[in-house]
Amino acid sequence: MIDRLAIIGVGLIGGSLALALKQAGEVKHVVGCGRNEKNLIKGVELGVIDSYQVSIADAVKGADIVVLAIPLGSMQTVFEKIAGVISSQTVITDVGSAKASVVQVATECLGERIRQYVPGHPIAGTEKSGVEAGFASLYQNRKVILTPLESTDKDAIETIDKMWRHCGASIEYLSVQHHDKVLAATSHLPHMLAFALVTFLSGLNDHDEIFRYAAGGFRDFTRIASGDPVMWRDVCLSNGDALLSLIDAYKDELDLVSDAIKNQDADRLLELFSKAKSERDSLVGNC
Amino acid sequence: MIDRLAIIGVGLIGGSLALALKQAGEVKHVVGCGRNEKNLIKGVELGVIDSYQVSIADAVKGADIVVLAIPLGSMQTVFEKIAGVISSQTVITDVGSAKASVVQVATECLGERIRQYVPGHPIAGTEKSGVEAGFASLYQNRKVILTPLESTDKDAIETIDKMWRHCGASIEYLSVQHHDKVLAATSHLPHMLAFALVTFLSGLNDHDEIFRYAAGGFRDFTRIASGDPVMWRDVCLSNGDALLSLIDAYKDELDLVSDAIKNQDADRLLELFSKAKSERDSLVGNC
Repeated sequence: MIDRLAIIGVGLIGGSLALALKQAGEVKHVVGCGRNEKNLIKGVELGVIDSYQVSIADAVKGADIVVLAIPLGSMQTVFEKIAGVISSQTVITDVGSAKASVVQVATECLGERIRQYVPGHPIAGTEKSGVEAGFASLYQNRKVILTPLESTDKDAIETIDKMWRHCGASIEYLSVQHHDKVLAATSHLPHMLAFALVTFLSGLNDHDEIFRYAAGGFRDFTRIASGDPVMWRDVCLSNGDALLSLIDAYKDELDLVSDAIKNQDADRLLELFSKAKSERDSLVGNC
Repeated sequence: MIDRLAIIGVGLIGGSLALALKQAGEVKHVVGCGRNEKNLIKGVELGVIDSYQVSIADAVKGADIVVLAIPLGSMQTVFEKIAGVISSQTVITDVGSAKASVVQVATECLGERIRQYVPGHPIAGTEKSGVEAGFASLYQNRKVILTPLESTDKDAIETIDKMWRHCGASIEYLSVQHHDKVLAATSHLPHMLAFALVTFLSGLNDHDEIFRYAAGGFRDFTRIASGDPVMWRDVCLSNGDALLSLIDAYKDELDLVSDAIKNQDADRLLELFSKAKSERDSLVGNC
């Protein structure tokens, strides 16, 4: 049982974590903190958090666990603010979609308290954002990746591992670098492709008509283009190198399709699409 | 009421059309035809079709309407077979995802009967295929695009227009060229991007792990990569020029994202993603 949980950033991810732990009966008090007081008031009204603080120092005081559920670009500021005030008993974690950049600022800011920090990333979300979008079952049967450092305290890891299990998630351990490479391929690249498709089509002359005839496949394909722009900006700034090399390599793959079309190469096209179909069909059970 | 409907190609699209018309009580007898007799027997067993013929000439005999629900690459063979045997009372339509290539072979094959042919394209489907995948509500609230020629008989258009309305669809009229341009952007390009993403990721060294950490967004994004490979091969062969120029232009759009990442241009990234989000959000009601 967590006596006091501090959530910095009460949006979809942080709010759903609070709701899941409450539903599981595994938290006594959740204090929320964020830059937008209206949002925090709404969080209390909705029962997502029990109280709120506008000052980070006040929010983390006496907390067993502090969760940073904020865009990657805000991590440094928050780590700087908690560094001097956090107790030796508090475990810190985050939910950032890229890990190397967060680990770097945490290392710079936390000093010896870095041992109490467990980098994390729940592989869950929707295209919606904000505290109203939160729901208790968001993490049910989802994976949470933890990327502890060699120096990370074993008890701290255990605490965060348990917290996510109470939300219904399964826990996986990866190195920071491995996480960032895998997620660039699985998540960051597809988001870039979807963003680019929507901006591309909206720039065409007859874009009204194009969107008018869009069917279900298009809707599914572009859903992730509705993701939070600030979050995705920060992912690009934090995991840019991995992403850039994937975008380049993806363009080469797209050239294979173009070449086959150019050459009217029916066999090659069938081979490419059959491979894609069988790969996609085989992973339906996984995701 | 349609007395006799002949469906050439009893799969998801043709089968769902039969089921929808039966449910609406708007067809007396559906005869199916196709190359795979087992599939036709299953169609009868499932109640999708009332009888079947393995010979196209036998299937279209006495039919009020003949629907070609087959891959684009099979259109020519079928048009050649029905050309000599079709009566002057029969209306012909098809469901091909690209229209110029079908209109061309129809024109070459049908002679004066071309007036009885109404090119069509229901904007509906799932990633599944085959007669078992068919269901009566597939066309409910979906658009069907008809692209009649100047010479097309007005009564024939009216017949096909009505047929689709009985399935719950709304009918839109476009020129052949306009249809192919719009669909290349809305449907054909996104499918190429999804196919290429899946084959790209499956070619990476750690692809097992990549798919292992794929979440819901990835599943949605790549669902269309499970489309029928033969159908998509034929779309590429039939609408290649439009598709090639879109793929090229899309790559330029992707370069805008890459450049912004390379330059760590936070404002530009936020602008691109905000534009994509607002465009995507605004079309949720449309598709």
